[in-house]
Amino acid sequence: MFRKAIPLACSAAKVPWSELTNAELVDAVNSRKIHFYGLEQALQPNYKRAIEVRREVVSRVAFQQPDGEKKESALHSIPFENYDWDRVVGHNCENIIGYVPIPLGIAGPILMDGKEYPIPMATTEGALVASTHRGARSITKSGGCNTLVLGEGMTRAPVVELPSLVEAGRLHKYCNENFSTLKEAFESTTRFGKLNSLKCVLAGRKAYLRFRATTGDAMGMNMITKGVDRAMSLLQQQFPSMRVIALSGNYCTDKKPSAVNWIEGRGKSVVAEATVLADVVEETLKCTVDSLVSLNVDKNLVGSAMAGSVGGFNAQAANAVAAIFLATGQDPAQVVESSTCLTSMSKVGNDLLITVTMPSIEVGTVGGGTGLVAQRGCLELMGCGGSSKETPGENARLLSRVVAAGVLAAELSLMSGLAAGHLLGAHMRLNRKQI
Amino acid sequence: MFRKAIPLACSAAKVPWSELTNAELVDAVNSRKIHFYGLEQALQPNYKRAIEVRREVVSRVAFQQPDGEKKESALHSIPFENYDWDRVVGHNCENIIGYVPIPLGIAGPILMDGKEYPIPMATTEGALVASTHRGARSITKSGGCNTLVLGEGMTRAPVVELPSLVEAGRLHKYCNENFSTLKEAFESTTRFGKLNSLKCVLAGRKAYLRFRATTGDAMGMNMITKGVDRAMSLLQQQFPSMRVIALSGNYCTDKKPSAVNWIEGRGKSVVAEATVLADVVEETLKCTVDSLVSLNVDKNLVGSAMAGSVGGFNAQAANAVAAIFLATGQDPAQVVESSTCLTSMSKVGNDLLITVTMPSIEVGTVGGGTGLVAQRGCLELMGCGGSSKETPGENARLLSRVVAAGVLAAELSLMSGLAAGHLLGAHMRLNRKQI
Amino acid sequence: MFRKAIPLACSAAKVPWSELTNAELVDAVNSRKIHFYGLEQALQPNYKRAIEVRREVVSRVAFQQPDGEKKESALHSIPFENYDWDRVVGHNCENIIGYVPIPLGIAGPILMDGKEYPIPMATTEGALVASTHRGARSITKSGGCNTLVLGEGMTRAPVVELPSLVEAGRLHKYCNENFSTLKEAFESTTRFGKLNSLKCVLAGRKAYLRFRATTGDAMGMNMITKGVDRAMSLLQQQFPSMRVIALSGNYCTDKKPSAVNWIEGRGKSVVAEATVLADVVEETLKCTVDSLVSLNVDKNLVGSAMAGSVGGFNAQAANAVAAIFLATGQDPAQVVESSTCLTSMSKVGNDLLITVTMPSIEVGTVGGGTGLVAQRGCLELMGCGGSSKETPGENARLLSRVVAAGVLAAELSLMSGLAAGHLLGAHMRLNRKQI
Amino acid sequence: MFRKAIPLACSAAKVPWSELTNAELVDAVNSRKIHFYGLEQALQPNYKRAIEVRREVVSRVAFQQPDGEKKESALHSIPFENYDWDRVVGHNCENIIGYVPIPLGIAGPILMDGKEYPIPMATTEGALVASTHRGARSITKSGGCNTLVLGEGMTRAPVVELPSLVEAGRLHKYCNENFSTLKEAFESTTRFGKLNSLKCVLAGRKAYLRFRATTGDAMGMNMITKGVDRAMSLLQQQFPSMRVIALSGNYCTDKKPSAVNWIEGRGKSVVAEATVLADVVEETLKCTVDSLVSLNVDKNLVGSAMAGSVGGFNAQAANAVAAIFLATGQDPAQVVESSTCLTSMSKVGNDLLITVTMPSIEVGTVGGGTGLVAQRGCLELMGCGGSSKETPGENARLLSRVVAAGVLAAELSLMSGLAAGHLLGAHMRLNRKQI
Repeated sequence: MFRKAIPLACSAAKVPWSELTNAELVDAVNSRKIHFYGLEQALQPNYKRAIEVRREVVSRVAFQQPDGEKKESALHSIPFENYDWDRVVGHNCENIIGYVPIPLGIAGPILMDGKEYPIPMATTEGALVASTHRGARSITKSGGCNTLVLGEGMTRAPVVELPSLVEAGRLHKYCNENFSTLKEAFESTTRFGKLNSLKCVLAGRKAYLRFRATTGDAMGMNMITKGVDRAMSLLQQQFPSMRVIALSGNYCTDKKPSAVNWIEGRGKSVVAEATVLADVVEETLKCTVDSLVSLNVDKNLVGSAMAGSVGGFNAQAANAVAAIFLATGQDPAQVVESSTCLTSMSKVGNDLLITVTMPSIEVGTVGGGTGLVAQRGCLELMGCGGSSKETPGENARLLSRVVAAGVLAAELSLMSGLAAGHLLGAHMRLNRKQI
Repeated sequence: MFRKAIPLACSAAKVPWSELTNAELVDAVNSRKIHFYGLEQALQPNYKRAIEVRREVVSRVAFQQPDGEKKESALHSIPFENYDWDRVVGHNCENIIGYVPIPLGIAGPILMDGKEYPIPMATTEGALVASTHRGARSITKSGGCNTLVLGEGMTRAPVVELPSLVEAGRLHKYCNENFSTLKEAFESTTRFGKLNSLKCVLAGRKAYLRFRATTGDAMGMNMITKGVDRAMSLLQQQFPSMRVIALSGNYCTDKKPSAVNWIEGRGKSVVAEATVLADVVEETLKCTVDSLVSLNVDKNLVGSAMAGSVGGFNAQAANAVAAIFLATGQDPAQVVESSTCLTSMSKVGNDLLITVTMPSIEVGTVGGGTGLVAQRGCLELMGCGGSSKETPGENARLLSRVVAAGVLAAELSLMSGLAAGHLLGAHMRLNRKQI
Repeated sequence: MFRKAIPLACSAAKVPWSELTNAELVDAVNSRKIHFYGLEQALQPNYKRAIEVRREVVSRVAFQQPDGEKKESALHSIPFENYDWDRVVGHNCENIIGYVPIPLGIAGPILMDGKEYPIPMATTEGALVASTHRGARSITKSGGCNTLVLGEGMTRAPVVELPSLVEAGRLHKYCNENFSTLKEAFESTTRFGKLNSLKCVLAGRKAYLRFRATTGDAMGMNMITKGVDRAMSLLQQQFPSMRVIALSGNYCTDKKPSAVNWIEGRGKSVVAEATVLADVVEETLKCTVDSLVSLNVDKNLVGSAMAGSVGGFNAQAANAVAAIFLATGQDPAQVVESSTCLTSMSKVGNDLLITVTMPSIEVGTVGGGTGLVAQRGCLELMGCGGSSKETPGENARLLSRVVAAGVLAAELSLMSGLAAGHLLGAHMRLNRKQI
Repeated sequence: MFRKAIPLACSAAKVPWSELTNAELVDAVNSRKIHFYGLEQALQPNYKRAIEVRREVVSRVAFQQPDGEKKESALHSIPFENYDWDRVVGHNCENIIGYVPIPLGIAGPILMDGKEYPIPMATTEGALVASTHRGARSITKSGGCNTLVLGEGMTRAPVVELPSLVEAGRLHKYCNENFSTLKEAFESTTRFGKLNSLKCVLAGRKAYLRFRATTGDAMGMNMITKGVDRAMSLLQQQFPSMRVIALSGNYCTDKKPSAVNWIEGRGKSVVAEATVLADVVEETLKCTVDSLVSLNVDKNLVGSAMAGSVGGFNAQAANAVAAIFLATGQDPAQVVESSTCLTSMSKVGNDLLITVTMPSIEVGTVGGGTGLVAQRGCLELMGCGGSSKETPGENARLLSRVVAAGVLAAELSLMSGLAAGHLLGAHMRLNRKQI
């Protein structure tokens, strides 16, 4: 989807739109002199007023409906004041009528790779922060967790068509044998993007070209698109009969469950592990190492296997991922693949070894929602706001490690709660959530 | 995870905590006289002050770190004033330090089943609202879309162990033959919950019991848990040797990719379709019906098939689902399965028939984040806030239909953008997102 | 695919074909007076001669090619004498040139549900029978295995199209509410087939109707097709605007990997378990219970999870399934789904509990290849040849249980071999296979 | 599983076993003086006699059972005479009691890459050969098909454990950075095996090392095992703390459904395509191009997507694969992954473009069952028996291409049958199979 320039108002006004009253502006929208989506442009730089007018438009429509007063007052419950709309307009949202506040809690801090990090979580699901906090404290008390970023690279996979299988075969061969040429083309468009790999698969005469590149501290979808564009131009010259069907052929794969991300990774591929002391398991987490190890097999491995899951071998990775993503301005639709995770538990000596393996955590510390004030604040709290000056990419990697550590803490705590429920012989208590 | 009562402060204070100064309270936390997470309880009902004190605690820690000033000021960029914390504390978040604002736009309205609905979307991803708006307008101009709720039911699947395969077989048989008894037990705990089905699968001696129930206007995870608890007690009496391993054995499946939800549904199973006029496709969407039909096969069917996807046969369903979920207080971790979708396109006469098939949209209009002011406002705008008085469940069904309609609009618009890119022979433009 | 009558020879001969010499018949084929595939019909009932002539045709073509002598002699290495072609022609194969012998071994006997059964295995993979034999003996020495047939039913899923989503919804509803009517129609066509369930899923306006029925001792694909045909006629009357697209819409699913079979079962759903004594594990299988339990997690659960498997949580189920299928005249293409299996191992006391869970074993003891002499012999050896007179279906169920027991034995033995390899600190030995 | 030397008879006999009568030998087995599986060794080189004695042992056991006569006579229906047992014993089967004949038909010839090839198919499923024959003829009449071997390589993936995540990370890095060293070690064990790639994935501290190598004309499981063994020894030296858990950790993946094979390929990755003339579609296949294109979407793409398939986007690939595998001595358990296939159809001009994409066809022309006389004969008929002298690997590649071409023919014919059924408005006919 392209972020095109916001179109001009429908018709040129004799006086600047900004000199009209709100009521006149509402009329102008209703009579299609200004597009509903064009208010920001018409009234720039006064974006707040544009939003105010749009709310009146919506309010008036609502008021004419059955239940109109209720709807009108509903609109008033959506805040829009005291917000820095300059950052949002043109970057993060269109047809704006306000904002939705998501409560923000802090779990931890968690000791990770020798340093303590708070885990900011934006959520409306009660008990999630408390539970993650408990897990984080248990890990920290036991000496902390270690993380490892195994691989890195955002992907984009255009789909193209060739006029014959022979030609498709030639393209396949070309991609395998001319990686450095394509890499050069790709990298000429970007300072930070480095092409890692290009995987070309055929489905008959159609080819899906999965480009994978590191993208500095950005999540990287935009950056990679530019590079892919350039590389595709080069390919087009080599294969004039090639027809580009679409910039994305779903072999990327973005925001959909897919084995290709689980198998080959997307974004950051991170593993985290902690050894939780037997004492902590028993006293803080109220269960036993044996019960956890056995529950992990029955639920996270066998249960998910029976359910036909690809990548869902965990208890609640998505809860922690979604909450950290919202807090730090990540794209919540990417929770789909960023939350794929295999949780393993085993007994080492008397203690519990717990690991989470997460091959496609898609995060960035610049771009997207990361520039909004509160979200940027959350990143700064962890020390990874914006682009890393010394080592570009380091901030985004740190964020991905915190995500994995947060998942580790959340897994540990929820699994303990389930195991404890059993061990205590207790009836299942009410109001359990996030299982 | 259980939402337990917030624990008492570590030690009893001689004077009420509320009479201490903020500085004294910060000291009390640091010296562990008050738990970090216990501030709300210590200072109730003045939750705002609790949050203020927590921010000071966090700020002081941050200040001692390298880069301390930056971190402290970061904290100040996270808003917490002017918010109704009474609704949040004890329900939606713990360890609160403020909230994160997510910009809110309106797409549409879209004509759905004969009535117009605005589509509220909270997002930080530029162009998403604009694109969905374009899709919604195109559908509305073409006569609107139809939706169908094919099935309904939240699920929960405990895992149990039997002492032998023979006993496991007996349990399996009992569940198949005594549904009405179990249903009665389940329904004795709830006014709205109605048990639909119980599927018992064995993995050796372990049994996974997938209960599925309608849950009125609630998303239903809590409601179903109560009913399952009761039904499990009854089973325990019948099978004294049965050992309940955990309340959830991942065969539910909650917040993980899984075939069981794709095949059997979870939450609402919704299909939406629209016939988009050839004129609208060409003039508004700037492409052709044939190009869309063919792109849908190459990308959404073949591309996702090559990528090894289960349930991801679409272009960007998760984008629309996540944005509507955030706007309306749904659980963003459930975007994982709620966004599974198969998008189909075909030519009917000269026009485009587009459908989306979404078997597990998990939504509610009461409970969770739906009670927060702004989120409730978004629900009211669509006329589905809270519980439906006349027909319990109707509001949640309406919300699920709007989600499907929103996805329909988003799919149409993005696919058109991709198809148009090709048709115009244009180079791939920069800043495309959400593909 | 339909088994149509073999077409007549191209032109009427003045004298019966059978009076011509072989050389004349070869000429007749080459000059297209007799179809290549029509020889059996032309020369009936002398099928052996038809095959002989076809071999000459093939031989002559081969002889004209480069390497001709080699090819001709190759043909002579394919046996065709001393075989009862009457049973084959018109039932099992066309364009026949002979047969391929597959070596047949016997594993076991295995003590299953209190009785001993030999396990016939046809295979060319060295060590498979020996290994399964070892597993079967270990199980038998430990007291045998138990099996359970949890569910039963062959499936067939036509795909149909309705003219609107509303109509598709009506069909969906009709199928759910009129099961007994459809069942009656279905069962009017067959003495053995009993319709168990009908699952109707929509993808937009298309509906996939998955009929599931027990089919006596037959594997049942033919039987169910007749019943489905009748039920579809009834549906067609109720929904005149319904268009049947195809008898099978792949939602059955036959001979393809699919979650629907893994989740809902196809053929027989069987679980088998054995408790293998610690002594036997150590002395016969040369490893330890602990090493097996831990290897099973690392390989069969985590390894397959990492590989993105749906239904492949085992070591070598397909080996045993394929070998028993070939020995008993089953359809080897159905090994694809019949071999899906989850193998679990745990320690019970000091002993090993091993189970295999196999939801879609597709077998029959009548029809298909089961009527051929040697294959029927293998079935008789186990006491399940042909149709069970007393309890129709019992023979096929017995066969499915032997398959599961055979898999249990094969899994036990191979896993032990792998675990022993490690325990002995031995270098991996050569010539290991079937891992 | 290791093919160990057949153990000696239990006790040393004073006279050679071969001098005993059959009755005495039967007694020796029953009194455990000779192992049931040791007869071949005891009586070598007279293997036929060993089999004869084993049959008597089995017969006598059978005779003592209820239904004994029936069982005994059953045994007699299993042939064992006139077969070259020398080739089988020690290589292909143990505990032999005879062989199972599988009828063999010839489909085609099919014009493939400019040359005609017969397609040998061993099957007991009526209509399969006839249908494939029809497809092959239609393709040949239309100018033939083209094939492309895109990639090649058998795989084996040991699983190992490291004592910490840090060490696991070091191993991961080592594998990525020292490929040539490992390649050298691997290739020192084999003349034909060439290591292509090594993919190391972590699940916590466990690493799965997927070696992929070309293996000349062998299917290659044995060859690669030797090379992997050597490479693992080298790794063990570099990482003394590494513990090899098992030679295969299921990430290979052999004989189980898995996304890793679908995404990365195993054996040969082959694509085949044909343009079938509109006339041929209508006259020979009795349907229309449009009906086929549309059916392919509804059944092979959408139907399989709804069924949650990974790799099963076809109508009946497994039927053709299984039949050709049996005819040519391949491992029928490998039909599981060798039959994964995406079939696509589109209209090009007025004609039908059909393609099959098959990423993991696991075949060889030496080793396994390929050395048996009849199977070798089938390979010779196609001109690919044994090892290619000029270009090692060429014979196996040819076989994989014939498999793909056979699947292409089978898909075309079955889909036409289904489409024709609809177009003719005909009721679904009985006795359709292999859908």
